[in-house]
Amino acid sequence: MKVLVLGGDGFCGWPSAVNLADAGHDVVIVDNLSRRKIDIDLGVESLTPIATIHDRLKAWNDVGGRPMRFVSIDIARNYARLLDLLRNEQPEAIVHFAEQRAAPYSMKTSTTKRYTVDNNVSGTNNLLCAIVESGVNAHIVHLGTMGVYGYGSHRGATIPEGYLTVEVPQPDGSRFTEKILHPADPGSVYHLTKTLDQLLFYYFNKNDGIQVTDLHQGIVWGTNTHLTDRDPRLVNRFDYDGDYGTVLNRFLIQAAIGYPLSVHGTGGQTRAFIHIRDSVKCVQLAIESPPKPGEKVRIFNQMTESHQVKQLAEKVASLTGAQINYLPNPRKEAVENDLIVDNRCLIDMGLKPTTLDGGLLTEVVDVARRWADRCDRSKIPCVSAWTSSQAAALQPSI
Amino acid sequence: MKVLVLGGDGFCGWPSAVNLADAGHDVVIVDNLSRRKIDIDLGVESLTPIATIHDRLKAWNDVGGRPMRFVSIDIARNYARLLDLLRNEQPEAIVHFAEQRAAPYSMKTSTTKRYTVDNNVSGTNNLLCAIVESGVNAHIVHLGTMGVYGYGSHRGATIPEGYLTVEVPQPDGSRFTEKILHPADPGSVYHLTKTLDQLLFYYFNKNDGIQVTDLHQGIVWGTNTHLTDRDPRLVNRFDYDGDYGTVLNRFLIQAAIGYPLSVHGTGGQTRAFIHIRDSVKCVQLAIESPPKPGEKVRIFNQMTESHQVKQLAEKVASLTGAQINYLPNPRKEAVENDLIVDNRCLIDMGLKPTTLDGGLLTEVVDVARRWADRCDRSKIPCVSAWTSSQAAALQPSI
Repeated sequence: MKVLVLGGDGFCGWPSAVNLADAGHDVVIVDNLSRRKIDIDLGVESLTPIATIHDRLKAWNDVGGRPMRFVSIDIARNYARLLDLLRNEQPEAIVHFAEQRAAPYSMKTSTTKRYTVDNNVSGTNNLLCAIVESGVNAHIVHLGTMGVYGYGSHRGATIPEGYLTVEVPQPDGSRFTEKILHPADPGSVYHLTKTLDQLLFYYFNKNDGIQVTDLHQGIVWGTNTHLTDRDPRLVNRFDYDGDYGTVLNRFLIQAAIGYPLSVHGTGGQTRAFIHIRDSVKCVQLAIESPPKPGEKVRIFNQMTESHQVKQLAEKVASLTGAQINYLPNPRKEAVENDLIVDNRCLIDMGLKPTTLDGGLLTEVVDVARRWADRCDRSKIPCVSAWTSSQAAALQPSI
Repeated sequence: MKVLVLGGDGFCGWPSAVNLADAGHDVVIVDNLSRRKIDIDLGVESLTPIATIHDRLKAWNDVGGRPMRFVSIDIARNYARLLDLLRNEQPEAIVHFAEQRAAPYSMKTSTTKRYTVDNNVSGTNNLLCAIVESGVNAHIVHLGTMGVYGYGSHRGATIPEGYLTVEVPQPDGSRFTEKILHPADPGSVYHLTKTLDQLLFYYFNKNDGIQVTDLHQGIVWGTNTHLTDRDPRLVNRFDYDGDYGTVLNRFLIQAAIGYPLSVHGTGGQTRAFIHIRDSVKCVQLAIESPPKPGEKVRIFNQMTESHQVKQLAEKVASLTGAQINYLPNPRKEAVENDLIVDNRCLIDMGLKPTTLDGGLLTEVVDVARRWADRCDRSKIPCVSAWTSSQAAALQPSI
C-alpha cells in the first residue's frame, strides 16, 4: 500500500515508518524536521545519538529494508506542496503524526501556545482540504491522545472508544438516547489541539466522506523496536528533558544517572501507557483494516495498561534502587484520578500488549545506562508551568 | 467601561460599537478591515453605501456621539500589537466579532476554507493568550452561532443554552448525570470554527479563569439601528450577494428589484433569527452583567424566533408580490428540521424582541428599495457549493 507518514522523522513516526516499510508498504516520509529544530532552541539532544533522516534512510537500505523516500514539507505552512504531493503520490493511507506533541512545551510561553495551536490546527486542516481538493481516496490514521477525555470526573466509569452513549432527559419526562463524541476535557494547550482535530475530522468525514481512524494514544514508553535495533543509525530518539521527556522514560534515565525520580504533586495521577513497539503495531493494524466507505470517524484507545505515577516511580525505584523526590506540580490537574479504559478494538484486531512487567522495562534501563554520559542533568527539571502562580511556586525548586 | 470591539467595522460590529458608545462606554474599535477587502476580491459592494471607518467615526463625533477610537490590527497575525494594545488600554470587556463569518464563503475553495480556519482559530487563540500574558482582567463577549448545535437530530427537543444535562448508563445498570457542553454538529467550515472557538474558551476558562460569554446567535436580519440612522455616514452594511448575504435580507432585496426569491432545496430548513437592533442590545446586556469570577463559560442563545425558510419566502412574497424560485441546494444539510430554542437568559436580562411581524420588515424593504439601483444582479446567485457533486449540480442553474 502507498503510505505517507507525516512526521515520519519523530519519536513515534520513525519507528512506525520503518515498521510499515518492513510490512511491505511503499512508504514516503514527510517531515519538516521541526522536532530536531525545537531541540536546538531548547538546547537539548536526544539521549540516544540519532542519525540524520538521510543517514537513517541509507542505513535502512543497507540492512536490506524496503526503500523509503523522504520529502521535506511543512504541512501547516506549505499547502501547495502538500497538494502536489497528494496528486503525485496518490496515497491509499496517510499517517498523521505531524504535530507539536509535548504538553509542557505547549504551556511554556505565549509563543509556544500559539505555535502549537497554529501548527497543529493548520496542519490537520490543510491535510483535510488537500485530500478534498486532490480527490485522492486516502485513509487518514491520526495520532490523537487519551488526554482528550480528560483525567477528572469519570467516577469509576469506563472510558469508551471515542463515542459515549447518553440519555437526554426532556422536560416532559421522556428521554432520548444519543451516541455522541465523548465530551472533551483537555488538560493543556497541546491536548486542546487534539480535541480541535477531533472536530475537524468529524466535520470533513460528515461533509466529504473522508475516512479517518483517530488513535487516542496513551503515554509512550520504550525507545527501539526490533527493526530500529538493526543498525545504530536506525536508533530512535529518547527524550528525557522537562518538556519532551515522558514520565516513564524520564524515570529510567534519572535512575540510570543516580538522579532522584521526579514525581510532581502527589503522584496520584493515573495515566494510560503503551510501549513504542505496540504503538507502531497499532498504526499498522489501523492502516491494514481501513474503515468502510461512509463509516464515521473510527476511534481506538491506543493504550495497554494504566498506572499511577507514584506506582511507576516505586516500580522503577525497586528495580534500580533510585530515590523518589516529590516536587511541586507545574500542571493544573486533579491531584488523583482513576482511569479505566476500553481498548478492545485494537486487542480484537490482534494487538498483543507489551506490559511493563514483561521484562522490557529492564531493556529500557539498559538503553538509559548505555547513553547516560550524554545526559545534561540541567535539562531534567520541568520548568514549563500551566499558570503564572504555578510558575512562581516552581521557581525555588529548580 | 473600557471596551474593545474586535471586528468593530463589520455588519454586527459597527452598530454594536455605536450602541456601546451611546450607552456611555469608552469604545476602541479594532479591525483589519478584512470584510471590506473580501468585497473587493468578490467584486461586490454593500447595498448601502458605507462610509470609511474614519468617516464613520467623524460622523459619530458630528452627531454628538461619545468619541470612539480606531486601531488597525490583524489579531490573527499580529500578536505583538494585540498584546501591546491590551497592556496599554487595560480593557474591562472585549467584544470579539473578528472572524470570517460567512458559511458559503468558507466553502468556496480550499483557500477560503483554510483562511477561515486559520484566521478564526488563530484570532481567538491569540486573544486568549494575550489576555493571559498581559494579565488584564477583561471579560470576552464572543459572537458564536446557533449553528454549533447543528440542525439535524434534535427530534423535538429544546436546544438548551450551551450546556446539556445527560445521563450516562453504565454496564452495571447504574447511571450518572453530567452537564456537558452541547455536542457540536457544525454544518460548514465557518460553523466548524465556532465549535473550535468553544473548546478554546472552555480550556482557557478552566486553566486561566478567563471570563467568557459566548453568544450563540441566530441569523441576523435588518440593517440599521436608531443610532446608525442618525447620519447617512453611519449607515450599516447590507450584504445581498450569494456568499455574505443572509437569507432574509436577500429575500428583501430580491423583492425590491423584482428578482424571484431564491429558496435552496425544499425550504424546509428551520433557522433562528434576530434583528440587528436586538443583537446589539444583547451584546450590551452581556457586557454590563459580566460572569462572576470563577464562573464557567456563559453561553446564551442570542435569537428571538425560528422560521422555516419557505415560510419566510412566503411572508416576503405576500408583503411585496414577489415570485419564489426553488433552486438546487448548494449546502449539505437536512432537507427539513425543527428548531426549538431556549433563549430565556437574554429575555430574563431584559431583551425585548423585535419580531418579523412587528413592522420592521417593511422598514427593511424600504432600505432595499431605496438602494435597489446599487444592486448587481449577477452577484445574487449562491455559487459556493459544499461538495464537488453539489457544485456540478449547481452549474446549470447559474
